[in-house]
Amino acid sequence: MTSPAAADIAARLDLARDISREAGLLALSFFNDRDTLAVETKANAQDVVSAADKASERLLRERIRAVFPDDSLLGEEYGLSEGSSGYCWVMDPVDGTSPFVFGLPSWCVSVAVTHGTDTVVGVIYAPVRDELYAAALGQGATLNGTSLRLSDQRSLVDGVLGVGANHRVAPETITGFLNALLHEGGMFIRNGSGALMLAYVAAGRLVGYYEPHMNAWDCLAGLCLISEAGGRTENFLTHGDLARGGRVIGSAPGAWDGLMELVDQAGTVAA
Amino acid sequence: MTSPAAADIAARLDLARDISREAGLLALSFFNDRDTLAVETKANAQDVVSAADKASERLLRERIRAVFPDDSLLGEEYGLSEGSSGYCWVMDPVDGTSPFVFGLPSWCVSVAVTHGTDTVVGVIYAPVRDELYAAALGQGATLNGTSLRLSDQRSLVDGVLGVGANHRVAPETITGFLNALLHEGGMFIRNGSGALMLAYVAAGRLVGYYEPHMNAWDCLAGLCLISEAGGRTENFLTHGDLARGGRVIGSAPGAWDGLMELVDQAGTVAA
Repeated sequence: MTSPAAADIAARLDLARDISREAGLLALSFFNDRDTLAVETKANAQDVVSAADKASERLLRERIRAVFPDDSLLGEEYGLSEGSSGYCWVMDPVDGTSPFVFGLPSWCVSVAVTHGTDTVVGVIYAPVRDELYAAALGQGATLNGTSLRLSDQRSLVDGVLGVGANHRVAPETITGFLNALLHEGGMFIRNGSGALMLAYVAAGRLVGYYEPHMNAWDCLAGLCLISEAGGRTENFLTHGDLARGGRVIGSAPGAWDGLMELVDQAGTVAA
Repeated sequence: MTSPAAADIAARLDLARDISREAGLLALSFFNDRDTLAVETKANAQDVVSAADKASERLLRERIRAVFPDDSLLGEEYGLSEGSSGYCWVMDPVDGTSPFVFGLPSWCVSVAVTHGTDTVVGVIYAPVRDELYAAALGQGATLNGTSLRLSDQRSLVDGVLGVGANHRVAPETITGFLNALLHEGGMFIRNGSGALMLAYVAAGRLVGYYEPHMNAWDCLAGLCLISEAGGRTENFLTHGDLARGGRVIGSAPGAWDGLMELVDQAGTVAA
């Protein structure tokens, strides 16, 4: 596989920015009307978020196919469509479906573009606050156009750590880690959207993020954002797997060693 | 102590609504300009939130004194000023100082009015989303003027539980509870503001809330909101203490038994 050309990446970054916002605003219209929609369609809140998820991913796929018909597409809702260009769009049309269902603001659209084991574009759009996070390999990261640059002065206990939890791993894998973190003097947040918490790490709002298992569409854009903001990440496409997922770790540079120590100390408990 | 008159409560609810919003918008001006303020005053982010906290509480106290000079005042920043009317305003000018410091949206102003062991008014204002939660004893709860009424159909595992964590209790008190919750099939959120998560319970966004220890100014308004929205709460002023604080539990009616079982099961671990 040849190295990706800067112009090819730049074109995909531009498209990713546009369609993430467009898909996010579409999902936001479902979110704002979800009570009415549920009544009108005799559906429950879960059905409304499913409809939003599907509509948002269809929009993303149509827009990408129109511009880059040879790119591969991998989305949470509609799976993999293989292309020949070497580029693959990895998308979560609504990350944080549980917050979405219950009316919490912490959900977002996550769009990444990979080339081999590199993530070359990462874009996250959070509609409720109208925040667009965008990054491309070697070109830095921005939040609503303003450059993001992480301080190397903050250690793990100088900030709040984002954590992800799910029922795909044993509870002890999560609570053992949290216990070690609290004993270290650290503190955690979980807002229900892993992608958004990764974007918050890139913006310096969280000092780092750890989740024992994530899917590729939930984490690739966020990891790219953290790297490009000057943070450290574990390469998901080396350690993890596009189809099966894997653990996700990212942080401000000064928090990395402390975070890795805690992850190693807590370990993974068999489910 | 005589029973509080409905008109006295209504007058305090009106004032609490007005000044919570006013204090919240004042704090928001600090929040939006915190990077500039930190540079201008050669202060760190922690100093900026302290300044916002103090300015917000001074505003609350001045406005209350002007209308109800005989009411007692209890605030996180400026402590207790005793009055003779039997009413006490219990205020947290910025709940969620850590989110405020780091630029996360989850912080709010919390204002309660107590009369004996009753909380007769509870108001929470979340400036970033411009959400005003308001309740008065026996008069129901509202969010931006719309009535809140909790469904009795949701059990603990039908929603997401808010949890509070702090370093005033042993880590195991928190992680033991989380472990039991995850094993039960439940899920948690922690957004860094206990008051705001309690308001989210009243709005049906979270199915309940548990924190092993909170201070009165962090929880009284939220507990009043939950009760008035039809939820269940433990009476903090019976079990807890205005000065020393205590544990806080509130939930949608259908989640109460499950939540209390988990709390009892996990217990409190000595720090």
